[in-house]
Amino acid sequence: MKIYANRMSTIPKSFIREILKATQDPKVISFAGGLPNPRFFPVKEISEAAARVLRQAGKASLQYSTTEGYLPLRQYVAERYSMKGLKVHPDEILITNGSQQGLDLVGKVFIEKNDRIAIEQPGYLGAIQAFSVYEPQFCPVPLLDDGIDIDILKKTFEKQPVKLFHTVINFQNPSGITYSQHKRVELAKLLAHHGTVLVEDDAYSQLRFEGSDLPSVAGMLGERAVLLGSFSKTVAPGLRLGWVCGKKDVMGKIIVVKQASDLHSNYLSQRILHQYLIDNDVDTHIAQIRRSYKRQRDLMVSLIKEQFPNGTHLTRPEGGMFLWVTLPEGISSLKLFELAIVEHVAFVPGKPFYVNGDGDSTLRLNFSNSDEDRIDQGIRRLARIVKKELAKSK
Amino acid sequence: MKIYANRMSTIPKSFIREILKATQDPKVISFAGGLPNPRFFPVKEISEAAARVLRQAGKASLQYSTTEGYLPLRQYVAERYSMKGLKVHPDEILITNGSQQGLDLVGKVFIEKNDRIAIEQPGYLGAIQAFSVYEPQFCPVPLLDDGIDIDILKKTFEKQPVKLFHTVINFQNPSGITYSQHKRVELAKLLAHHGTVLVEDDAYSQLRFEGSDLPSVAGMLGERAVLLGSFSKTVAPGLRLGWVCGKKDVMGKIIVVKQASDLHSNYLSQRILHQYLIDNDVDTHIAQIRRSYKRQRDLMVSLIKEQFPNGTHLTRPEGGMFLWVTLPEGISSLKLFELAIVEHVAFVPGKPFYVNGDGDSTLRLNFSNSDEDRIDQGIRRLARIVKKELAKSK
Repeated sequence: MKIYANRMSTIPKSFIREILKATQDPKVISFAGGLPNPRFFPVKEISEAAARVLRQAGKASLQYSTTEGYLPLRQYVAERYSMKGLKVHPDEILITNGSQQGLDLVGKVFIEKNDRIAIEQPGYLGAIQAFSVYEPQFCPVPLLDDGIDIDILKKTFEKQPVKLFHTVINFQNPSGITYSQHKRVELAKLLAHHGTVLVEDDAYSQLRFEGSDLPSVAGMLGERAVLLGSFSKTVAPGLRLGWVCGKKDVMGKIIVVKQASDLHSNYLSQRILHQYLIDNDVDTHIAQIRRSYKRQRDLMVSLIKEQFPNGTHLTRPEGGMFLWVTLPEGISSLKLFELAIVEHVAFVPGKPFYVNGDGDSTLRLNFSNSDEDRIDQGIRRLARIVKKELAKSK
Repeated sequence: MKIYANRMSTIPKSFIREILKATQDPKVISFAGGLPNPRFFPVKEISEAAARVLRQAGKASLQYSTTEGYLPLRQYVAERYSMKGLKVHPDEILITNGSQQGLDLVGKVFIEKNDRIAIEQPGYLGAIQAFSVYEPQFCPVPLLDDGIDIDILKKTFEKQPVKLFHTVINFQNPSGITYSQHKRVELAKLLAHHGTVLVEDDAYSQLRFEGSDLPSVAGMLGERAVLLGSFSKTVAPGLRLGWVCGKKDVMGKIIVVKQASDLHSNYLSQRILHQYLIDNDVDTHIAQIRRSYKRQRDLMVSLIKEQFPNGTHLTRPEGGMFLWVTLPEGISSLKLFELAIVEHVAFVPGKPFYVNGDGDSTLRLNFSNSDEDRIDQGIRRLARIVKKELAKSK
């Protein structure tokens, strides 16, 4: 008898996870991980919130709780959406273990084996992994500088029905690309026409340091849309708290699978997080993160422009944590990675973000986790290696 | 296009969850939930542990972490097993969001659609829910007073291959039954012979208040066995922390699906829990819980024997949180539930624990969550309703 389920052969091992092992050495300047900058973790404030919750709520904060999550925390999320013009009821929110769990719950609720799922190319690895468990067929659709290639998406939808489309619409992971207003409207129309479910994975929107907020596509659709959010980038990832937002019918299904998955999210952490959010000036805190990430991006972009060889293409994200580099022809980023790690600098090669095996000349750089002196050293070092490789290839 | 995956029509809604809504009223004496007694939640100690972790580990305790979980916590679990004679390496442990998540991960790794899964009858609802997501065929096998009916299990295995057998081997939920030493050996032999995977779901073993600890069946099997554990019953469920324990090959698969499910468990809570465990005399604390639960069981058992009509059968658990009542013929526990809730006393009717629809004369009573005066009042009240119903049926 075969012991493991078939899905075990289709879930990709995370290349990033493997890389992270190689970058544990403190000598390595790593642009590989997707980590927020720990400088901004509100350690003292979380500690005060924890003390207050345990003092005031006591035993209640340590008991089993509801599957949906702590109501005041759901109200907080709903109010934040409303302040941004998106009308959301607290019952339309369920608290998850980070937005990664949101992806797993979405996979459970919607994906049938062999369902066609459209994803961005390059696409978010966490989504590819989470959805792979449910054995869909991935249909990759290229990203352009202003969002998804609508023509190719349209053709993909017309060829055969597509169950679901996953997008990281703001400052995408891995590319840093943000959908334009025009693309959002086009996308909403196309999805509505075909009845395809939208999964709008929005972990970064609060980290916009340039330009103006653009409306959620899920908000334009109503039904058949799920919006995922996270506290990992604005407060702290170690709390593992995010949320799923959707209309009543969808949320009913999400609650059933959440309960089957782990009953409910960590209740003490939900209470601590909520206490932190109401006791502190979170907007000022997030503004600080934004200012710093902007400086880090500025430095990284200008150094790449200055130091990398001609023919290098890069994105210039308006927020978030990542930018995307396309190297001049003749350089493989997988090979570059091996050379770079010897010289103690790391990044993520682009190939794992392409389900069709493309992307060998691309790479993802994280600018949030490294302070400016490390960015300066690391990018210069990386540029030297790139130039050496390019010279060899000629 | 059908929007939801087929699995959504097979996952049972938790009847207990529905019941819990009806029992929120503080006037209701509820034996329905599966809650530990909050009297024993170490609020002050957890608060001290939180302060210490945030003071000493600071930002590190709020960052992303490894999928396997906090190593010192895994070492702690491994050492506790070793002290009980079961040799476990920390790499054989992965920290989960309570043992419910362990069940989901096991489902992901092993269960293929239509796989035959043997479960106890009555069986643990959380397992039925978690596994249903992966669309197996359930093969219920009756529980006898000393554990599973080995003859029927054998016939089930011989009829067609069975991928996996799930058991709550100590103080089972819902029945309170514990497998005898003889049954454990027989079970291990049978599983090894057929190559069936054992899922030994052991959330309650530390709550033994009578008799002696018996060896883990997973420990007799080595490969093809997964052992699930939990801190919910000995420390606090609000932390949502448990673990999966298995051999290298299985754990490699578990790690892949855990990462796809939510990256890792709440890191801050893992650190706080570990700090609590090393700073406090946990054994004395658990001994207190045991003594209290024993008194509560004693009272509940003696009251049922005294107050319930002749022909009532009940289990006398040696630990854990539940006991199981079989009513005299002619009384439906579903109907009884409706009458009882009007009189402000609640329990869980037995039917939902039977995948084949049997069990209408049975019910589950929780003795851990209610203090002795509530048990006294509640059981007397319930007995009156049972006697009234029995009189009507004659």
